[in-house]
Parts: sequence; structure tokens; C-alpha cells
Amino acid sequence: MTFPVVGMVGGGQLARMTHEAGIPLGIRFKLLSDTPQDSAAQVVSDVVVGDYRDLDTLRDFARGCDVITFDHEHVPTEHLRALEADGIPVRPGPDALVHAQDKGVMRARLDAIGVPCPRHRIVTDPADVAAFAAEGDGEGDGFPVVLKTVRGGYDGKGVWVVRSEEEAAAPFLAGVPVLAEEKVDFVRELAANVVRSPHGQAVAYPVVESQQVDGVCDTVIAPAPDLDEALALRAEEMALRIAKELGVVGHLAVELFETRDGRILVNELAMRPHNSGHWTQDGAITSQFANHVRAVLDLPLGDPRPRARWTVMVNVLGGDYPDMYSAYLHCMARDPQLKIHMYGKDVKPGRKVGHVNTYGDDLDDVLERARHAAGYLRGTITE
Amino acid sequence: MTFPVVGMVGGGQLARMTHEAGIPLGIRFKLLSDTPQDSAAQVVSDVVVGDYRDLDTLRDFARGCDVITFDHEHVPTEHLRALEADGIPVRPGPDALVHAQDKGVMRARLDAIGVPCPRHRIVTDPADVAAFAAEGDGEGDGFPVVLKTVRGGYDGKGVWVVRSEEEAAAPFLAGVPVLAEEKVDFVRELAANVVRSPHGQAVAYPVVESQQVDGVCDTVIAPAPDLDEALALRAEEMALRIAKELGVVGHLAVELFETRDGRILVNELAMRPHNSGHWTQDGAITSQFANHVRAVLDLPLGDPRPRARWTVMVNVLGGDYPDMYSAYLHCMARDPQLKIHMYGKDVKPGRKVGHVNTYGDDLDDVLERARHAAGYLRGTITE
Repeated sequence: MTFPVVGMVGGGQLARMTHEAGIPLGIRFKLLSDTPQDSAAQVVSDVVVGDYRDLDTLRDFARGCDVITFDHEHVPTEHLRALEADGIPVRPGPDALVHAQDKGVMRARLDAIGVPCPRHRIVTDPADVAAFAAEGDGEGDGFPVVLKTVRGGYDGKGVWVVRSEEEAAAPFLAGVPVLAEEKVDFVRELAANVVRSPHGQAVAYPVVESQQVDGVCDTVIAPAPDLDEALALRAEEMALRIAKELGVVGHLAVELFETRDGRILVNELAMRPHNSGHWTQDGAITSQFANHVRAVLDLPLGDPRPRARWTVMVNVLGGDYPDMYSAYLHCMARDPQLKIHMYGKDVKPGRKVGHVNTYGDDLDDVLERARHAAGYLRGTITE
Repeated sequence: MTFPVVGMVGGGQLARMTHEAGIPLGIRFKLLSDTPQDSAAQVVSDVVVGDYRDLDTLRDFARGCDVITFDHEHVPTEHLRALEADGIPVRPGPDALVHAQDKGVMRARLDAIGVPCPRHRIVTDPADVAAFAAEGDGEGDGFPVVLKTVRGGYDGKGVWVVRSEEEAAAPFLAGVPVLAEEKVDFVRELAANVVRSPHGQAVAYPVVESQQVDGVCDTVIAPAPDLDEALALRAEEMALRIAKELGVVGHLAVELFETRDGRILVNELAMRPHNSGHWTQDGAITSQFANHVRAVLDLPLGDPRPRARWTVMVNVLGGDYPDMYSAYLHCMARDPQLKIHMYGKDVKPGRKVGHVNTYGDDLDDVLERARHAAGYLRGTITE
């Protein structure tokens, strides 16, 4: 056997960072990218520009790849089945990936295997949303309710929080089935990241705290501070069980709500390297990207344990200043231990264009350094 | 200012790993490679295939680069001066780089600034070698003597150890000036790695022990075990002073002999990321590759301190088995903390095709893990 070719569908930052992690392993990386300017296309040698929604394009791309994996969950499930029928290993496979593509399928499956989720059901129209709200055991009319299109949402897109039947019209306009969920009264959001290989080996990263701003991940703290040990263990076991039951291969992020009454409920699943695992690049013995590559190639997985007491990741969002490079001088001089990860993307307000990692023994210090650097790069901090 | 383009001359593994380290910084990387199959050309998007010995090729390549740096020291000095005259920043510049290109120039300059070197002088023919040998203060006839062509040698090539005047003919056949040096009675070899930026900031990595086999680096231990603290400090200061006096920009490796009588003597200089600094990829807060990129862009340098008590690097040389990938299963399963760095090169006996890094608190354990993995990948260990 010679060194294999990993085919990556999607040219975003996850593909870029997976390529980066694959270089030391000597594996060959082939990219299917929407444009030659995409984040990963800038740094990969072997790039095919094409539309992942077109089966012929996918089939052409897959020729010469030893395995296909993904930067995103948007490849139509039926195309993945067609590739599998052609004999191409698709990892994660369509039977697993559908749970990250379709929130309705995901909820049904988690119910079936007894994994705790927010109260939920598919709803048909605004009146049905009001009925769903009233079915709750809370006080009042049961609003607010969270509505999600079952396919196509991410980073707060395709998600609505509605306070009345009247507000519930918009989600139904797209003609996609809509899932209603109780709005969970959570203390904070957590994420349990695990990686699983085809032969069934799995590793769990420490459970992290994930802080969102306007529905977009802002800060991740690893490990989650003051997390009850039993709860942390339960979250890791839950993520490992989901990976196994759903037949996940590669990285699985399980986004969780920690409720006021000490429960954990599954919010979302992602079957690829995930924003809540970016801290592992500098904070863990083996990064999520390296372990994703090892998993899809069915290689033994690397040690997921942390290398520092605390690691903090803060996303760099596009701000008013298009030139982030000039901010490097200040950020690097201020903090020689700072780890910058930029994606090569044009700066647009609110767009994720990079992240920073910091680590150390003192959480306050580690948090301050990461927040300062991200704020300075974005332009919201100027000193 | 937008994100700059770093032009890297040479497509070897140093370029490959520098590209890997540059990806997170969002810098653009442009490669001048001998062939499209070179180690770095496999993983870089923007590759120009051409001959670095041709000035027109270099000039075309340099257009569109914000700075030029190097994977090797073989670009003719006069071409570098021509690029500088064109207004292209060349880092390290020709006035510095010539000291890594020409061992005669290097020895003369180190003498002039008072840096201790082995006894040496340029010799003209075998009889002059015998005269050089007799000039020593040792007993007998002063042989053996080390002979080096002043340009073009590396990894033991261009170096001869001769025991008599009769053996001294070969080095003169190439028509390149020959440098004679006393054969130093050393305890071990050390390396002091430093990085310097154009505005004069400099950082020093801990001094390492470098173990050679047949003139090729085999094992590096960071930091050098049982090294006298004062000697370590002297070595770091010496490397920083050489970097400053020679105007080095980027990474400088100073290869040293530690003598039986407690002195350190400079063996060789390299002005690029160096084999003795590969351990920094997994063992230091900032790798030599990341700091080289930062230096050539005149960005503040990253923290060079170690992240582990001990880090060991062992080179993977080509052996009898052409298929190293199949060895991953065993190596990764045996040691989930192992860090493999392969260069994408065809396996040829004795060729450097990769290296492994291990780190931890117990040096014996860290050494055993690295040696086992490198030996297994090479095929000299089979269990």
C-alpha cells in the first residue's frame, strides 16, 4: 500500500486545517472546492473546482481518492449513497451523516436510543406550533418555542425563536419540514467531541464550555470550568454512544445544553471537525483534525488528552477593518505565546475569518489573552 | 497592507514544513521547485517549477513575492545580490547567507569576531594538508585531518577525514577551494538554534544534543542532557552574537562540538530551519518553522521555550521497505502520543524521508519511543 489520497469535499476552513494536519502524515489531499479562492483551495496543491451537488462532479472527483470526507454536511444524502454503491469509502457514511444533515432524523434516532433531548416534534404550520407550545409542562402558553428547518441551517441560520403563533410563519415559507423544540432554560452550553474509526476505536476529548453570541460560537474553554465530574463523564459517554449507535466515522461534535437542574440535553450534532474542537490544535496532544484524518483512514487514533491546564479558543469575526494582518504586530508582540489561525477569507462583518488559541495555568489570564487578541484582530479593541 | 506572499526557493522538506507552519498565519506561500513532485510541491497550491541557478527564473519567480527565503543554501550569491538590487527583500540576505554557503568565508568571519572554531585554514594540495597537520600542537604527524570543499557540501557530502597525505587527493579533484580542519576530540555534538528578525529581535531555543550516524543527523535530544548551565548559556549567547554580527534574518542553526576539556567550537552554520530544530514542531511553544516565517516577515517572534521536559527527534531514513505507510498501524497503535512527520519522498536507502518526535518527563522512555518508531518505519525493527 502506498500513501493514500484523502478526498475532501468542501473548501472551507475545516478543509484547510484538515489539510494542514494531514501534511505531517504524508497523506495526499485532494480538494473539491466551489471556487479556486476558497479557504482550503489557497493552500492545497490538488484542487478540483466544482459543484458538490452534482453527482457526476462528485464521481469524477472521487476517482483517484481512497476515501471521501467532508468540510460540511451539505452533500445530498442520495449522492453519498451513489458513491458508496460505486465502491468509494465515504466517511462518515450517508447512514451516519444523515443525522447531521436532517434534524428530524437526528431527533427521532436519539429518542430511539434513549439520549436526552429538548422536547420536540415536527410541526406543520403556525397553529401546530401553538399546539406544541401548549403541550409543554411549563406555565403560561408554553412560548417561546425554537423552530428549525430540518435541513440547511448552521450558525444560527435556519433557526427562529418565536414568542407567539403570529411570529411562527417565517420558518414555513421555505417549504422544508420544520422542527419545534422547547427553549431550554440552560446554564451554559457544552460540547463533547469524540472521534471514531471504522474498526470501532474511539477517543473522547475533554468536555468544553462553548459560549455563543447571536447564535455563533464565540469562546470555547477546555475543559469546561467547574463541571461536575460525573456530568462530564456522562457527556463523554453519551457522545461515544451516539458515535457508535449512529455508526459515525471521523469527528463527532455533540453540542449540549447544561440545564439548571443538572441534566444535559443534546442540542446539535456535527460529523466533521467542529468549532468547539479548534482548541485541540494547540491544547491537545492530538488535534481534532489529525484524528479526523486518522479515523477516515482507519488508522489508530491519537491521544486526545490536553497538554495544558486550560486552553481557550476565541473566534475572530470580520469587523470594520478589512486588514487584519497589520494587527499581527501588536498581537504577537503583546503575547509571544498566542496562536493565530487565519482562514485566508475576505473580511465581512460577522463572518468567521479565523480564531486564536491561548493556553496556560491561570484561566483568567488565558481568557483575557485570547479575548484581547481576537478583539484586536477584529478591530473592537484598539489598545 | 494585505496578507503577504512568502516566496520559498527550494521544494524540499524544509519548505514543506515551513508552508505547514505558515498556513495558520494566513500568509500566501509561493514555491520555486525543481520538479512538481518535490516534497513541498505536493502540498503547496502556488508552485513554479524552475531552476534556482537561473537568474531570469528567479526574477520571474520573485515578481509577486513580498519576501524571498530558502529551503537550502545553494542559490548563487550573485543572484541573491541581483534580486536585492531589484528591490526584493531576500531573507537571509546574501551578505549573511554567504557564511552558510562558503565555509572559508564563514571561518574567516568567525575568527574575526572571536568565535572559537576548530583549528583550520584553506589548503592548496595534499602536501599542504600534511603541512597543516604538522602545524598542530598534538603528538605524532597531526593526522587525521578533516577536509571540506568550501561550497556544496551537506549531510557528510563534501567532507573527508584523511589520515595521510596520500589520502588527501580526492577533495582537490572538484577544483573547489578546500578547507582543512583539525579533527576535534569532542564529547558530543550540540546545536544552538536562534531566530532573528530584520528589526533585531532574536530568540534562542534551548541548546540540544545532536547525534550523528555516518555524518547524518540521527537523533536530537532537547534540551541537551546534563549540559553545564554556564556552557549552555555560552552556546546560546554565541549563536545570538553570530546571528547579529552576520546580519542573519530567519532561523540560524549553529552546530557545535563540545570538547573533552569543556570548550564549545563551531562546526557548521545553517541559515534556514534545520534538522536540529525539528523537535520544536511538537516540543516548543513556537516551532522553528513558524518563527522563521515570522522573522522573514519582520513580525514579532514567538516564544521558543519548550512545552515538555524532554523532546526527542529521530530521523526516519529510507531502508529496505519502500512502503512506510503500512508501518503506521503498528507505530500509532503502540504509541498514541507519537508525532510522525513524513516528507512525501520516495524511499531510497539512507535518504531522509521523515522524522518522528516524542516528548515526556522520562528521557529514557521518550528516547525509546522515538527510536522504536523510526526504526519500525525504516524496517530495521520489526516487532
